[in-house]
Amino acid sequence: MEIDRVDLEPDELPKHWYNILPDLPEPLPKPKDPGDGSRLKFLEEVLIPQCYKQEYLEDRYIQIPDELWEMYIHAGRPRPLYRALRLERRLKLKRVKLFYKREDLSPTGSHKVNTALAQAYYASKAGIETLVTETGAGQWGTALSYAARLNGLDAVVFWVRSVYNWKKDRRTFMKLYGAKVYASPSRVTEAGRQGLKRGEKEGSLGLAISEGLEYASKKPNSAYALGSVLNHVLLHQTIIGLETKKQFEKIDMYPDVIVACLGGGSNFGGISLPFMHDVLKKGKRIRFVASQSMAAPNLIKGEYRYDYGDTAEYTPMLKMYTLGHKVRMPPIKADGLRYHAAAPIISLLRHHNLIDAVAYPIDEMAVFEAARLFVETEGWLPAPESSYAIRAAIDLALEYEKKGQEKIILMNISGHGFLDLYAYRKILYGRGR
Amino acid sequence: MEIDRVDLEPDELPKHWYNILPDLPEPLPKPKDPGDGSRLKFLEEVLIPQCYKQEYLEDRYIQIPDELWEMYIHAGRPRPLYRALRLERRLKLKRVKLFYKREDLSPTGSHKVNTALAQAYYASKAGIETLVTETGAGQWGTALSYAARLNGLDAVVFWVRSVYNWKKDRRTFMKLYGAKVYASPSRVTEAGRQGLKRGEKEGSLGLAISEGLEYASKKPNSAYALGSVLNHVLLHQTIIGLETKKQFEKIDMYPDVIVACLGGGSNFGGISLPFMHDVLKKGKRIRFVASQSMAAPNLIKGEYRYDYGDTAEYTPMLKMYTLGHKVRMPPIKADGLRYHAAAPIISLLRHHNLIDAVAYPIDEMAVFEAARLFVETEGWLPAPESSYAIRAAIDLALEYEKKGQEKIILMNISGHGFLDLYAYRKILYGRGR
Repeated sequence: MEIDRVDLEPDELPKHWYNILPDLPEPLPKPKDPGDGSRLKFLEEVLIPQCYKQEYLEDRYIQIPDELWEMYIHAGRPRPLYRALRLERRLKLKRVKLFYKREDLSPTGSHKVNTALAQAYYASKAGIETLVTETGAGQWGTALSYAARLNGLDAVVFWVRSVYNWKKDRRTFMKLYGAKVYASPSRVTEAGRQGLKRGEKEGSLGLAISEGLEYASKKPNSAYALGSVLNHVLLHQTIIGLETKKQFEKIDMYPDVIVACLGGGSNFGGISLPFMHDVLKKGKRIRFVASQSMAAPNLIKGEYRYDYGDTAEYTPMLKMYTLGHKVRMPPIKADGLRYHAAAPIISLLRHHNLIDAVAYPIDEMAVFEAARLFVETEGWLPAPESSYAIRAAIDLALEYEKKGQEKIILMNISGHGFLDLYAYRKILYGRGR
Repeated sequence: MEIDRVDLEPDELPKHWYNILPDLPEPLPKPKDPGDGSRLKFLEEVLIPQCYKQEYLEDRYIQIPDELWEMYIHAGRPRPLYRALRLERRLKLKRVKLFYKREDLSPTGSHKVNTALAQAYYASKAGIETLVTETGAGQWGTALSYAARLNGLDAVVFWVRSVYNWKKDRRTFMKLYGAKVYASPSRVTEAGRQGLKRGEKEGSLGLAISEGLEYASKKPNSAYALGSVLNHVLLHQTIIGLETKKQFEKIDMYPDVIVACLGGGSNFGGISLPFMHDVLKKGKRIRFVASQSMAAPNLIKGEYRYDYGDTAEYTPMLKMYTLGHKVRMPPIKADGLRYHAAAPIISLLRHHNLIDAVAYPIDEMAVFEAARLFVETEGWLPAPESSYAIRAAIDLALEYEKKGQEKIILMNISGHGFLDLYAYRKILYGRGR
């Protein structure tokens, strides 16, 4: 019989993350501060201590603490790998095989839970009582609210007001986990009050970060949690790729192409880096493809240079492919992809031509059409962000098929779309919320 | 380490359903028609032939066709069984163990997919091209839309207009699967036009059934699909309990109490009947508890007698615990529990004192509070219907604990609540949609 799913037993869940730092083609450029160094000191003080340490690790494999490993299992890991047989048939593929990893099965609906649980775990062990963060689309805020609750911590989320205002369901979801959620700009921070004074009613991710950092720096026993870009975040996400490698071993296959969407780079890094190890150290050949929006094509139109992580310049500068930290990006439904720069690790790999990138138009029609095809054939409802991976995987598959090339393509379904049905309606059927 | 999840490998998925008919304490009373028998003939003509046959099976185990078995695996079966360790700790349980089965992991968000896939499979093999159905809350309509699409069939759904009007997200979801969805009363059937003439703008489940039956009886190569109550639906749902039995065997435990919510009885039957077999045939002692709403407490306040399945009296009469087929039920958020009668199989078992029942007040506060406790501890977002099972399981656990009794309680999480966050907001935070 035809089983199109590869599972791992709970006890097959990897017990280590993969740290790519020692394997990079050149040392990762260090963060720097054009001023007096106070930003670097600030970052060190405001992050969870163990996470800050993980920014500079030298070991290749980092042990996942037992208790956290158990929480991963509770959260549904290992997650299945699927062969997209039905989608292949619909696309009439004969030479190309499509696989997808199911990060959408997470409790809050995205891969963000992988690092949220790790950060909340380390915070609780360090005696921290409150985790503070910002959120744009809302996936990261929900994941952190969940992880904080499961680790007995409070969560405070600064949420870009223009999104906060209408994503009522996601707001209720965070609240159910007991999180305190502020629309940003808020009146609870100086940065927020200044923003309001300047008339920035809608808010921005940059301002929300500034508010969160300020709030965390003033609140006793608190720390700031970041959902993407930094090395420790990508480290925690490697659990995705490490599982997937085991799954391919089980069926004695190996991917030729790996596709994931990319905003800051956390789900892309998560599925790619463990395979990148094989490319860097074992001579394997894999084509890595980042699927982006033309609203934020940082890997394609960005420059590789030092830039800030936030618009308000509270963070140190990191060497990244960046569109400029003050760039204005048009609104899209795949909010999670709207970030001006790609993670330093991803950027360095891109700089060494190890990563390809494509970008899709901001009307998102092509992307949602791909999502619909996925729903009709595979039956699962992907998040708008994940649909960028599906679109790119389909395009690549058709291209290889036409050229008569045998390929195994792996894509990452980073999240589900149950809270994004309005976006499907808007894009595919042209109707409002 | 502490793993609180019991998985089955894909190839451990049971290959048979369990048919309880030969094991019942007395033969199941046959459907009857107080008129000329035309309703019985009509039902035979309008149902999928193989499903109609399954209403009267004599074998105890019914083979799941290979192709359908593969579709179950694709849809994520077997689903995990969890030990609710975190909830147990929160409730300070020392003697009572809580387990839950994860039907919420289905593609459309509920256990309804188990019978939808079976019905669509049999329909496609019989050369049927269109499946027609009704839906109230929308879970069944979505599941059938999904199953029809995966089997290459068209789906037509008549959806109670008062729900259709505001559940826009679920409507979009059905549409993504390619279903044709009509608000009922509609203008496409005589029953619908009559309803509109009578001024029944809001619609009702009874009228939607009447519209669907009429539509199916007139459309060539079509059949009507039912999502609950009938024997074949409960048969298909036994996959839930059969998996769960294997999972308990793996950890060398066995449940003393099984709790599920009950409207028509499909998820209750699904998890209970395979264990009921052990009670009826192997002398096991299990307490089965149906958790209901006071809006529709058919097992508690109903009479055990012959009644129609729909308000319009298109169906034959079935012997059931019923509140009367024309009863008016107050609106609740757990829409899926608002049905006037319990499935004939469940009713007969209740009549023989093999099933207990509880009902919760229509303000649903106690139920949503239980759901919140579940979210805060276990992290998963349950459907409002499933939250009735959680409430009852918690109440029972506290009762046994107080009495100093060692018990293992199993509950079924029949669906997820991602499309019901408005209900959480309304009930817990007193705000509108």
